[in-house]
Amino acid sequence: MPHHFPPDSVGLVTPQILQFEEPLALDCGRSLAEYELVYETYGTLNADHSNAVLICHALSSDHHAAGCHEGTDPNKLGWWDNCIGPGKPFDTREFFVVCCNNLGGCKGSTGPTSINPENRKPYGPDFPIVTVKDWVRSQARLADRLGIGQWAAVIGGSLGGMQAMQWAISYPDRVRHVLVIAAAPRLSAQNIAFNEVARQAIISDPDFHHGHYYEFGVVPRRGLMIARMLGHITYLSDEGMRAKFGRELREGTPNFNFNFDTEFQVESYLRHQGKAFVDRFDANTYLLMTKTLDYFDPAASFDQDLSAAFHRTQARFLVVSFTSDWRFAPARSREIVRALVRAGREVSYSEIASESGHDAFLMPIPLYHETLHGYLSRVAREVNGRTSEPAHTAVPAATEVNAHAA
Amino acid sequence: MPHHFPPDSVGLVTPQILQFEEPLALDCGRSLAEYELVYETYGTLNADHSNAVLICHALSSDHHAAGCHEGTDPNKLGWWDNCIGPGKPFDTREFFVVCCNNLGGCKGSTGPTSINPENRKPYGPDFPIVTVKDWVRSQARLADRLGIGQWAAVIGGSLGGMQAMQWAISYPDRVRHVLVIAAAPRLSAQNIAFNEVARQAIISDPDFHHGHYYEFGVVPRRGLMIARMLGHITYLSDEGMRAKFGRELREGTPNFNFNFDTEFQVESYLRHQGKAFVDRFDANTYLLMTKTLDYFDPAASFDQDLSAAFHRTQARFLVVSFTSDWRFAPARSREIVRALVRAGREVSYSEIASESGHDAFLMPIPLYHETLHGYLSRVAREVNGRTSEPAHTAVPAATEVNAHAA
Repeated sequence: MPHHFPPDSVGLVTPQILQFEEPLALDCGRSLAEYELVYETYGTLNADHSNAVLICHALSSDHHAAGCHEGTDPNKLGWWDNCIGPGKPFDTREFFVVCCNNLGGCKGSTGPTSINPENRKPYGPDFPIVTVKDWVRSQARLADRLGIGQWAAVIGGSLGGMQAMQWAISYPDRVRHVLVIAAAPRLSAQNIAFNEVARQAIISDPDFHHGHYYEFGVVPRRGLMIARMLGHITYLSDEGMRAKFGRELREGTPNFNFNFDTEFQVESYLRHQGKAFVDRFDANTYLLMTKTLDYFDPAASFDQDLSAAFHRTQARFLVVSFTSDWRFAPARSREIVRALVRAGREVSYSEIASESGHDAFLMPIPLYHETLHGYLSRVAREVNGRTSEPAHTAVPAATEVNAHAA
Repeated sequence: MPHHFPPDSVGLVTPQILQFEEPLALDCGRSLAEYELVYETYGTLNADHSNAVLICHALSSDHHAAGCHEGTDPNKLGWWDNCIGPGKPFDTREFFVVCCNNLGGCKGSTGPTSINPENRKPYGPDFPIVTVKDWVRSQARLADRLGIGQWAAVIGGSLGGMQAMQWAISYPDRVRHVLVIAAAPRLSAQNIAFNEVARQAIISDPDFHHGHYYEFGVVPRRGLMIARMLGHITYLSDEGMRAKFGRELREGTPNFNFNFDTEFQVESYLRHQGKAFVDRFDANTYLLMTKTLDYFDPAASFDQDLSAAFHRTQARFLVVSFTSDWRFAPARSREIVRALVRAGREVSYSEIASESGHDAFLMPIPLYHETLHGYLSRVAREVNGRTSEPAHTAVPAATEVNAHAA
């Protein structure tokens, strides 16, 4: 069924898969003999291959960043659709945008749900723990295969921002600009503590079966649901929750009983989020991604001097944080900025006022999008060889996809 | 075995039990035909019964607030031992201190683990949900039985502070002073959200059996453990966790495997706390107490005007908060103070610098204890009929109980 998309949409997109047969050595000491990466691209690679932008995804996200897939609900847009398209901050008239599902994921790239070639069973807990460095190494191979020697920019929010930083450290000459959004140079003890409670909820679920639940035809639903509910509290801010839910009761008066049906709106919201997540995400992947987060610590190899870690970088940086984000608070972004300045790197920093907490990085906040747009316009001029703003026709603001217009 | 206690200890204490046979009508519409309250007292009631102080306990606490029980580890002191004793802030030379286990608790007062006289089985989920108002009503009956017409002070931290506030509202003429420590006028949506995740962890545990786990000879260990781990994160501050645990690995290097043994010190600490809690606390009581917290909202009957709720109070107030407490942040205490001032009440407010988060209210922080001491010295002079400081001999600072000195 054909859809009509607004002019600032990338429209219908098709995921692609690349097979890698050269073994990938991992930080854990093991290696993957072969693996696949699923990815999407939006826009066109220019003649000198200089306009490619890599989007790195966060904890529970994937390669489907923009547009919509043929045959699926046209309102189910990619997770960063509000940022990617003609005239949007990651302007597909200027950039060739690439986004892949990370190794260890559950949306098409090789991960715990994939078949282990050694025994023809799902990897499950035998899948190796991968690190942010490993991801960046696998993404570099993807770049090689796509003919991209240097990214115009590597961009990510949250765990995606950590990958963007690691790109600048691991491959200094392969990235011109790095956009680190709502990230941190490493997790705090409190961040690790929340991850640990989420992991405990999953692994203590009797349906977890030490990670071999696929073989039992079950999934650790309860544990994964609780992990996600907990995650959601850390994605929202206290004030945002107050504005959205207050203390409103769903029924008006307390039910005062022991069945613990949802009473407050916020309970209902969290349970819905938890349940929906179980249907779309794999518990082993969730466990793995939380460990990847815990381990990220680029300063560790430099005697805890983050600035020293950045000394080898050559990229220019934009760092963005959000006032009400308490998962990775603005202070954490300022640590990154301070270390970059001390390392003599060029860095712009913008702290955006928002009530949306950590989730703000996914929201179409005007000042935020203008910030990204402003920075990336300069990058576009650089890589596309112009010296002034292109005279594009104005693109109307994004509207919802109208599936009935066909 | 006789112990030697330091001179500022209340020493050996014995819990007492009172049986109440007059039915107690509850906010939920049901009533308890009969019930027991277990309590402890420290110090001596003066001739005109004017020097009694009520300590209200928080979520997972009980009546054993000071000293130690005969035959138990002499280092297992009551939960607020650092505040209660000769020369301590709640000075037992001045005050007759009372602390009871709240109704619905699991440490001796009637609650879900008690036998339901109707069917001779444990109440379990048939125990009625009680509110802070219900607790205060039951404590007023305890006061009647002890011959206490008016408390010199009602004191509590966290959920205990909510009871102290409710005392001033429910029984204006029965309390002279109210000390509200690390509390809030009601839970925020975020507070409720954390409670909801804790509840979900418990009720989704297959060993919960809809609350009838006693009959199955099991307890929902996994769920209660996760609930407690999560609670602990909210009791500590981000900076306190950083100072205490940092990102230290227990073994020095990551183990990079899928068994998710504890790696970071903070994980080990949380698991220990979670496991220890399961052995000492009842899951149904935990569920009930979280609901009691969620429902507390004295302003609700006054069109959300907290000040109007305080209009009928006659007590004088001390409100104390701690800078790094993010469960009930100082801003929440200031809401209470503002409402009291607007209601024309006498209120002192002190914000204490501390890295200990919400837990700070249990810590022997010098400025905090001096604050309590200063305020309560005045109360002591009032009720004990003196006009100046008593000339007590100096009491040495608390030291650890030495069980080997006997």
